[in-house]
Amino acid sequence: MPVNILFAARTVRWVEYEAPLRAALDAVGLDYVLDVDLPPETVDYIVYAPNSKVQDFTPYTRLKAVLNLWAGVEDAVNNPTLKVPFARMVDDAGLTQGMVEWVTGHVLRHHLGMDAHIVNPNHDWIADAPPVAADRPVGILGLGELGSACGQALQQLGFPVTGWARSPKTVEGIPCLTGPDGLREVLRQSQIVVLLLPSTPSTENTLNAETLALMPKGAFVVNPGRGPLIDDDALLAALDSGHIAHATLDVFRTEPLPKDHPYWSHPRVTVTPHIASETRAPSASRAIVENIRRGEAGEPFLYLVDRDAGY
Amino acid sequence: MPVNILFAARTVRWVEYEAPLRAALDAVGLDYVLDVDLPPETVDYIVYAPNSKVQDFTPYTRLKAVLNLWAGVEDAVNNPTLKVPFARMVDDAGLTQGMVEWVTGHVLRHHLGMDAHIVNPNHDWIADAPPVAADRPVGILGLGELGSACGQALQQLGFPVTGWARSPKTVEGIPCLTGPDGLREVLRQSQIVVLLLPSTPSTENTLNAETLALMPKGAFVVNPGRGPLIDDDALLAALDSGHIAHATLDVFRTEPLPKDHPYWSHPRVTVTPHIASETRAPSASRAIVENIRRGEAGEPFLYLVDRDAGY
Repeated sequence: MPVNILFAARTVRWVEYEAPLRAALDAVGLDYVLDVDLPPETVDYIVYAPNSKVQDFTPYTRLKAVLNLWAGVEDAVNNPTLKVPFARMVDDAGLTQGMVEWVTGHVLRHHLGMDAHIVNPNHDWIADAPPVAADRPVGILGLGELGSACGQALQQLGFPVTGWARSPKTVEGIPCLTGPDGLREVLRQSQIVVLLLPSTPSTENTLNAETLALMPKGAFVVNPGRGPLIDDDALLAALDSGHIAHATLDVFRTEPLPKDHPYWSHPRVTVTPHIASETRAPSASRAIVENIRRGEAGEPFLYLVDRDAGY
Repeated sequence: MPVNILFAARTVRWVEYEAPLRAALDAVGLDYVLDVDLPPETVDYIVYAPNSKVQDFTPYTRLKAVLNLWAGVEDAVNNPTLKVPFARMVDDAGLTQGMVEWVTGHVLRHHLGMDAHIVNPNHDWIADAPPVAADRPVGILGLGELGSACGQALQQLGFPVTGWARSPKTVEGIPCLTGPDGLREVLRQSQIVVLLLPSTPSTENTLNAETLALMPKGAFVVNPGRGPLIDDDALLAALDSGHIAHATLDVFRTEPLPKDHPYWSHPRVTVTPHIASETRAPSASRAIVENIRRGEAGEPFLYLVDRDAGY
């Protein structure tokens, strides 16, 4: 009997994913049916985007697992009808690599002071070399897959990197602090802070008026993590005062960022449109199919969401 | 008898270098005199900037070596009065690391399409993720100390890097092509080309109308090497036609770049003011003093200029 796989995401994603999913399924030799419309009681797995039409999982009576297309799960983790194993997307080849490139690029951009050369209307030749990376401490808040990979890439380039996580982590070469005192310490010593924490009630407004004030004057904020990690009003005030030199933000409480949001026109803010970490269909499809293969072989699923922690 | 060391560079450099040079000299335990003014016939070593007042070395009758403060030697290598060993600056901790940071930063900037977010007057939210680095081939022209280090840093970030050099080189993990056919091959396959060749008669106008036309449409040129490597008129024409998407240039035939030079106002050119690779006084001083120590100990000098090759 074939494995029945429902693809529950917007049509644009089906266009993008159908061929790579079939290629990945064929590669592992599964007998399968893959479609965007299947009788609910026949479905074994759902490849899922939290913004799909499927919000009530009750009719999916033989469902074995829901395999998220997104790294972020906060829109689905509290769905009380989702009772089967729920895996988030961990697509090393796309998500992690993309994030490492975006974070490394924007950290180097701020470190090198590139913006003053990219936009230089008076054609000023001001030959001030920046310090070397060894003199530019970077803090990474959140040391999961993404934070660890970004921290290691920055450290290889010469930046002194300190991490902070909710629970103690061991990442080769990166000192990791924990708890409220550790957070204050990382903020005090970091000229560039990168936010890669998950979005949970306990991480909301991690950067607020009090914690932003701990950062050195002229520091940079880089947020490719989640919008709610930042108290937006507090960040705008810190940018207005010049205490924070610049914020580069890829994620927001409302996306797309509303046209009238003050971030768009603030001279010390760069908005990027949630592109730091994008699943790329070929590698994401292989990751999803690996979980289906595991389910059929009776092996444990990878990357299951911890519903108590919320991520 | 003390070793007499003349510091022959502009006053601003003396202010910057005096203390770190003395610290480095003290650290190796030499008996020395270091000054900006010494009787020529008493001088053992000259710490030298090619734009200093010393242009005739004839009166320096007991000179043992000239130790350049700059990586570039083309302004001094043809001085017929300079007959003693002449060492260029190789300051790994400053020059090489600074170059790696500048090159990696600007390659990532073009790869990620950052400029469209840094300057986005219409506040457009266009969520096109770039390809991953693995799909963005980079060519490095010149595989000396700087080119090799930059190539390896880019490769660690995932870029496929191909190098080109005058003579065959072995750099771990980087295929190296040589000769005119090799140059054409590197240009054909590279979406981003980084110029790190020395400035010699044979490298002048390495990028010209013919070679620029070999690059893929929409490619990027990054020049932290030397101004004469590029035929400026040919580059401007390739930018005007859109064949080359953008050029980021740190070095020019005339520096500072004249206010009326078309590079300043071209929308597809970014000018940085010769800051990609700057000696940093502490590490540069240690490199210079190491050569003085070697001279006094009868050991061979490091980083001697090959006058026939011109670098």
